[in-house]
Amino acid sequence: MKTEEINARIQALRDVMQQEGVDAVIIPQTDPHQGEYLADHWQVRRWLSGFTGSAGDLVVTRTKAFVWADSRYWLQAAAQLKDTCIGVMEDGKPEVPSIAAYLSSNLPGGATVGIDGMVFSVNSAETLEKTLARNGISLRVDFDPADLVWLDRPSLPKDKIFLHEEKHSGESAKSKISRVMENVNAEGAGATFISDLAEIAWTLNLRSSDVECNPVVTAFLYLSPENSTLFVDTDKLTPEVESYLANCGVSTRPYTDVKQFLASLPSQTKVLVSAGQTGIALRTILGDRAVISGSPVAMLKAVKNDTQIKGVRNAMIRDGVALVHSFMEIERRMAEDIPTTEIDIADILLKNRSAQPLFFDLSFDTIAGFGPHGAIVHYSATPATNATLKPDNLLLVDSGANYLDGTTDITRTISLGNPTNAQRHDFTLVMKGHIALATAIFPEGTRGAQLDVLARINLWKEGLSYLHGTGHGVGHFLNVHEGPQSIRLNDTLAPMTPGMITSDEPGLYREGQYGIRCENLILTTDAFTTEFGRFYRFEALTLFPFDISLFDVNLMTDAEIDWVNEYHATVCERILPALDAEAQAWLINKTRKLTR
Amino acid sequence: MKTEEINARIQALRDVMQQEGVDAVIIPQTDPHQGEYLADHWQVRRWLSGFTGSAGDLVVTRTKAFVWADSRYWLQAAAQLKDTCIGVMEDGKPEVPSIAAYLSSNLPGGATVGIDGMVFSVNSAETLEKTLARNGISLRVDFDPADLVWLDRPSLPKDKIFLHEEKHSGESAKSKISRVMENVNAEGAGATFISDLAEIAWTLNLRSSDVECNPVVTAFLYLSPENSTLFVDTDKLTPEVESYLANCGVSTRPYTDVKQFLASLPSQTKVLVSAGQTGIALRTILGDRAVISGSPVAMLKAVKNDTQIKGVRNAMIRDGVALVHSFMEIERRMAEDIPTTEIDIADILLKNRSAQPLFFDLSFDTIAGFGPHGAIVHYSATPATNATLKPDNLLLVDSGANYLDGTTDITRTISLGNPTNAQRHDFTLVMKGHIALATAIFPEGTRGAQLDVLARINLWKEGLSYLHGTGHGVGHFLNVHEGPQSIRLNDTLAPMTPGMITSDEPGLYREGQYGIRCENLILTTDAFTTEFGRFYRFEALTLFPFDISLFDVNLMTDAEIDWVNEYHATVCERILPALDAEAQAWLINKTRKLTR
Repeated sequence: MKTEEINARIQALRDVMQQEGVDAVIIPQTDPHQGEYLADHWQVRRWLSGFTGSAGDLVVTRTKAFVWADSRYWLQAAAQLKDTCIGVMEDGKPEVPSIAAYLSSNLPGGATVGIDGMVFSVNSAETLEKTLARNGISLRVDFDPADLVWLDRPSLPKDKIFLHEEKHSGESAKSKISRVMENVNAEGAGATFISDLAEIAWTLNLRSSDVECNPVVTAFLYLSPENSTLFVDTDKLTPEVESYLANCGVSTRPYTDVKQFLASLPSQTKVLVSAGQTGIALRTILGDRAVISGSPVAMLKAVKNDTQIKGVRNAMIRDGVALVHSFMEIERRMAEDIPTTEIDIADILLKNRSAQPLFFDLSFDTIAGFGPHGAIVHYSATPATNATLKPDNLLLVDSGANYLDGTTDITRTISLGNPTNAQRHDFTLVMKGHIALATAIFPEGTRGAQLDVLARINLWKEGLSYLHGTGHGVGHFLNVHEGPQSIRLNDTLAPMTPGMITSDEPGLYREGQYGIRCENLILTTDAFTTEFGRFYRFEALTLFPFDISLFDVNLMTDAEIDWVNEYHATVCERILPALDAEAQAWLINKTRKLTR
Repeated sequence: MKTEEINARIQALRDVMQQEGVDAVIIPQTDPHQGEYLADHWQVRRWLSGFTGSAGDLVVTRTKAFVWADSRYWLQAAAQLKDTCIGVMEDGKPEVPSIAAYLSSNLPGGATVGIDGMVFSVNSAETLEKTLARNGISLRVDFDPADLVWLDRPSLPKDKIFLHEEKHSGESAKSKISRVMENVNAEGAGATFISDLAEIAWTLNLRSSDVECNPVVTAFLYLSPENSTLFVDTDKLTPEVESYLANCGVSTRPYTDVKQFLASLPSQTKVLVSAGQTGIALRTILGDRAVISGSPVAMLKAVKNDTQIKGVRNAMIRDGVALVHSFMEIERRMAEDIPTTEIDIADILLKNRSAQPLFFDLSFDTIAGFGPHGAIVHYSATPATNATLKPDNLLLVDSGANYLDGTTDITRTISLGNPTNAQRHDFTLVMKGHIALATAIFPEGTRGAQLDVLARINLWKEGLSYLHGTGHGVGHFLNVHEGPQSIRLNDTLAPMTPGMITSDEPGLYREGQYGIRCENLILTTDAFTTEFGRFYRFEALTLFPFDISLFDVNLMTDAEIDWVNEYHATVCERILPALDAEAQAWLINKTRKLTR
């Protein structure tokens, strides 16, 4: 990307701002569905700035422009924005103001900040407005200059929609709609308007390929007893899907009809919208018809039914087989001195996973970080950074796939040879945290944030820590990150409920040396009921061994050693029948018993 | 209390409601300072209903009346309200509605609910108003019928105010006022209005005896560069205190002048008020002058300075000596078959504590629960329940004192003879939790809720639990419960900061059998700084042994056994020099080393 081109785009934006009397504009890295992963059409910040990070908002005033990049992207943003008129705000540093604070102290009273109210949620717009108002700055939520300056903007994805069959989803769309509407009615509303793409895909049992690694459909969904409507590019509909939707009682209208539709709803209609997932522009159109609440879908979607759980268990066997073949191949190449890079690792995993039945796509871009690259938490190898593996350090591999019957996400850290005592010490501390969470038992109502410290305390006691969450919810043949539950330092208020699938992935990152992360997906299940109430536990779903050469049993309790051995026994029991003799021998060797 | 008298009081209240067009009134169990412990003047709910519990609001409509009692008080409320026109709502049961929900579904649209806006905080009144408004019910915040129906209402406390000397508080009022005003200015306000009695006492280094066990002064405090004012009953002022306040730049006005004063403030004055601690009536008077925020005092008050910490350490030695003498006496009486009741225990503790230098008062009413009474979490022995100790069960004693140089709060559970394996098992699980929290190390910024599970997980794994918080903040010669930090399941957002004093008190309650709670006060201190940041740890302040006859070392790790032995060594090191030979021998025997 040429510097002049970027500067010209910012200038074109400023011209529109001047015409419209807007003093500053915020371009967030999201879409009208508050998405984390975006179709090209919504990559406005990327197009305007040339910065390609997956997070980081752009702010442009009449004279200045900055990207607010979090620590993952400080270096990348500096490199990509070098020589342009756009600076980097190193978000997270104490001296770096929030966007609202920056605008408050750099714009005069009476100034106007413009945002596209489609891509700012009710929550974020209201918080922003409140802060700006304290300094006499007003917020305009109908300022969307993207189409005016981005003349060759890509269109929305045209991929066809297909059904996620009930043999995989375990529940009909009709039944889901009825359960969603129960939640809607309980909040005093008669209808709901859903913007979240994963929620729409789950509710209607529909999928497409609109977002890389996220098999969602770009759409809005209005549900009511009278006129449920899917707003979607009609090119994406097949006759089969149209008649299926009609049978579900859902009619279709063009994606771009949504504002007009909401504006025309009768004034007495009460429409539940989720404050964190709905654009402020749509909420404004609804006016008094809006009932602001949490999502009526999130909790239903997060709790998997028996069919989904059975599907995930089967997907985990196939994923485990693909992992066995992949790590065997990596080992063989290392043994035969065949040059192997981080990108090769990703290719090997893709090759072996895509050979499995029911494979659809990866669930996210594979992270393969050798040595120091493993310490960069969201590292993604590029041709420029692509390291060649050597038999003297750790390799961190975080990868996953979407199968029609379930979604996987696994991180393993392996030694490529001669692990040091320091590496074994660090790895064992991380595993102690992994095991402490995996073996937790907790009463009904417990939230993930209440368990998080179990994965961290052994690291903290030695002055070590990791800054990411310990666990995220995982969709079913859907987004690999989903709510409402999570296991992290900050509370999300959703209780860990039987049927939820969550990751367990503590880590430790030694800058310039190596990174360690150990991740399984865990299923919340019933443990027992006592006079003190109902208790839950976790069951590990992921099936692949941890590297036994990296454990230091002197740091472990007997119970921790037993856990590793029992987990490895389960891996063998479930995976061995699906392997040929050579792979069986490999796996049996990799799951040798840990002993003192 | 005669039933007819209670019914007549409710009828008198309904007469006033009718005259004023009020359809329902809520009488909360608090005061205009959002207090937890109330002077008699504010015991409106107790006077109207005859129910004496320390918590539970009264709701009176034109035809019904109920006390919302939490589980601690279900039985007591039922007994005390028997035959009156007032029923009990067993708050906490799933089928029992909240007060707002009850009123919403039992009053017609257009109805009016009245409250005294002095005794409802901004937060609670706004939440209530929002819920009622959904059902077309309006909230009137100026309805205070207490004086009209309670004709012999006690006056406010007249006890004299005295200074908490700087040799104990470690900081002058002038310095504190200046630090509070820094926080006020940082929120964009030029003044602050403080309702919380402990915050006022702390800020001005003033104390009195207005609330049982809480050495506070009933007052409001307005701080500003121009006209700082203490609103207080002038009968409580001595010439010394008046000249001291004048020297601090604080003038005095009658307590009842507060509304008039706030109403007369210039319209451009920006007054910071804490939304959880300020009555909605006062916030309404301030109107646009109010800057709603958190408390500008709470965090400053919670972080103790070196003088306070040194004072608490010394107070803990004296408290430990009093405890040694008390438990020796209990043991001697048991050995000599002298009948000893729960109330005797409280008397013995009071006698020994009040003999100590710098003793001022208890910091709360002693809880001494023998056998099944120990399982009632907030048990307080009355002549009717007072049990006589027998050498066959556990005794739980939760007690504390206010000394001029610090506040104590300790719970010990001891066996009076022949502990069962089940008792030792339960006790050891509770202690494992106590120790896990006491030995935690955690990064700067960690909140108590993030550590809470450490105290619970060993109980949870066996299907056991306790429902109260694990730790509360503790004042300095002030209220034994203070914020902003706490260690509990629900997050309070205040980070554990060096200088904070918090309790560590997990428990286990076997209904009908016995209760166990093990409580020390712990000080947050620096641990170390690494490349991963600054880490904190706790130091136990309380000095008294745990009952070694109740430990089952087979359930403990070596590190846990070491912790008990090291803690007991510290107790001996600090307490022994203050004991006579007999008491020394007793303590040495009680702190014998735990071994496998």
